[in-house]
Amino acid sequence: MRIVLDAMGTDDAPRIEVTGAIEALREYESDVELILVGDREVIDAELARHEVVPNRISVHHAPDRVQADDSPASVIRTKPNSSIVVGLELQRKRDADAFVSAGSTGAVMATSLFKLRPLPGVDRPAIGTLLPTAEEQCLLVDAGANIDCKPQHLVQFAHLGNIYAREIMGRPKPRIALLNIGKEPGKGDELSAAAYEVLKNEDSLNFVGNLEGRDIIEGICDVVVCDGFVGNVLLKFYESVAQFIVGLIKTELGALTENALDFDHIFRILDYSETGGAPLLGVGGVSVICHGGSSSKAIRNAIRVAAQAVRSDMVVQTANRLSKSISNAPEEVS
Amino acid sequence: MRIVLDAMGTDDAPRIEVTGAIEALREYESDVELILVGDREVIDAELARHEVVPNRISVHHAPDRVQADDSPASVIRTKPNSSIVVGLELQRKRDADAFVSAGSTGAVMATSLFKLRPLPGVDRPAIGTLLPTAEEQCLLVDAGANIDCKPQHLVQFAHLGNIYAREIMGRPKPRIALLNIGKEPGKGDELSAAAYEVLKNEDSLNFVGNLEGRDIIEGICDVVVCDGFVGNVLLKFYESVAQFIVGLIKTELGALTENALDFDHIFRILDYSETGGAPLLGVGGVSVICHGGSSSKAIRNAIRVAAQAVRSDMVVQTANRLSKSISNAPEEVS
Repeated sequence: MRIVLDAMGTDDAPRIEVTGAIEALREYESDVELILVGDREVIDAELARHEVVPNRISVHHAPDRVQADDSPASVIRTKPNSSIVVGLELQRKRDADAFVSAGSTGAVMATSLFKLRPLPGVDRPAIGTLLPTAEEQCLLVDAGANIDCKPQHLVQFAHLGNIYAREIMGRPKPRIALLNIGKEPGKGDELSAAAYEVLKNEDSLNFVGNLEGRDIIEGICDVVVCDGFVGNVLLKFYESVAQFIVGLIKTELGALTENALDFDHIFRILDYSETGGAPLLGVGGVSVICHGGSSSKAIRNAIRVAAQAVRSDMVVQTANRLSKSISNAPEEVS
Repeated sequence: MRIVLDAMGTDDAPRIEVTGAIEALREYESDVELILVGDREVIDAELARHEVVPNRISVHHAPDRVQADDSPASVIRTKPNSSIVVGLELQRKRDADAFVSAGSTGAVMATSLFKLRPLPGVDRPAIGTLLPTAEEQCLLVDAGANIDCKPQHLVQFAHLGNIYAREIMGRPKPRIALLNIGKEPGKGDELSAAAYEVLKNEDSLNFVGNLEGRDIIEGICDVVVCDGFVGNVLLKFYESVAQFIVGLIKTELGALTENALDFDHIFRILDYSETGGAPLLGVGGVSVICHGGSSSKAIRNAIRVAAQAVRSDMVVQTANRLSKSISNAPEEVS
């Protein structure tokens, strides 16, 4: 399979991307080829700094780079030669199977929607993000793609998350929960109360009901459904708290580095880059979004997520399941 | 001053409340008298277990107890002899100056609204909660009292938080921020975008703009304004994450208790009970809400918060400021 990696996305591009790409090919199965998209001269210079470069890496030239202040929706028109637009066009033409980028989330999303199109039955593709918990990771949908949602959008997020959790995360019967301010049915704002009423009757979902903020960390469900405003606030808060606490611990341990204390697993749980790579769910292709501040490890993980999505035929699976499961949902709610 | 403490609120009532009350009187200034409200026989038995009970503690009998499944809005009618209703009635009659309870948040709020009435200019009283940050604590308003808010409600929360931060938290010119999914003006859902437009023109506020989830922990503002849905999810999530991480560290340190490692300040930062006691802002009295799972330390802190509010004449200050500052706000937004 061929995976496009936008080489110009991170704050420290293309150094991080090139390192992540080389590490990924060293670590993962040999059926993956990587196409680095971006300024060829800059990427080649970066590749030259590595002693051994796997021959499964190639470079595709795209001279432009999307900047933070570019309007996401206009990028496709204003920056047609940017790594994001060129990279996703490769997938549209079927010259590649997946796209990974740490560039502007808005631009990746808008361009993915245009190039890959939403799947039938999906009004609003959503971002799924894995959250570390005390048990297994859980998928938060939507992590920030959609604000001002209607109940049927939350229902669609639940179905998209359900399929992803089963096909990619390997959870046989994903437990789907609705993020809310109380456990009881009927709790919450108008949006979540109405979504609950639909979700509880969706036979194709293992809907386990409302989930409060305090329950997320316990890992008692596989998919947490919420609108993108709450999801975005929560996700960014989680990352910062984890970093903050890891920082506190590290400072405290500073004088003790010789000590045999093994805090590795704490750091692993709190290390967001372990989970790097958030899939855009509900489009007719594979598009994986990373943070601008990603490490090479996060890029490597995102490539793994993209490869899993291609290998499991996620898009076709999603389209098939969607046509069975949510065909009626949008009409059931206003 | 006389502060009513609902003795029947915590999960382990009245043991926690009695201990917290005795500790508070030992620690704080002598102008505070505490009235424990609840089942006299049970409270007296608990008091008898303490060798020394300050004479500034008295008991006021209230035989009923509000349960988790009581409808909050009906408690005033269905449980007129409950500790919550009796306790707040003491303040309404001016037999007490403040009320502290770890009972049902909904019941305390509904009964406070009825007995103490909202201040003029306040459509929806809000819960303010102190969040630990890397710098000083910041106040989150609303932490869960109001869902489905309109822009003018967020503007009112900003004013209520502003007055509390100045008068009680001692911040001379509180920095007020709007919780949002991006820093730029115009970002966010309809609610926050509209609230931003009003807040930026409020001359009596030091409005510092939008704040993302990741910025909260940095402590770069004094008041974070959001609707009660987001605030509730965020608050509960924060508490659970902090507990979770403290648990991880403690497990890791288990074998090392003899070690001189000083993690005290980490635990203190993450220990939510340090900040116990969330004031209900915008009512014509002092009503401080604690968690059902509060420790005696949290109860002690809540009593301190209530005493500060009485001492600084918070209600009169708030009413005066409100009449100047938000008289026009509600008309400015739809």
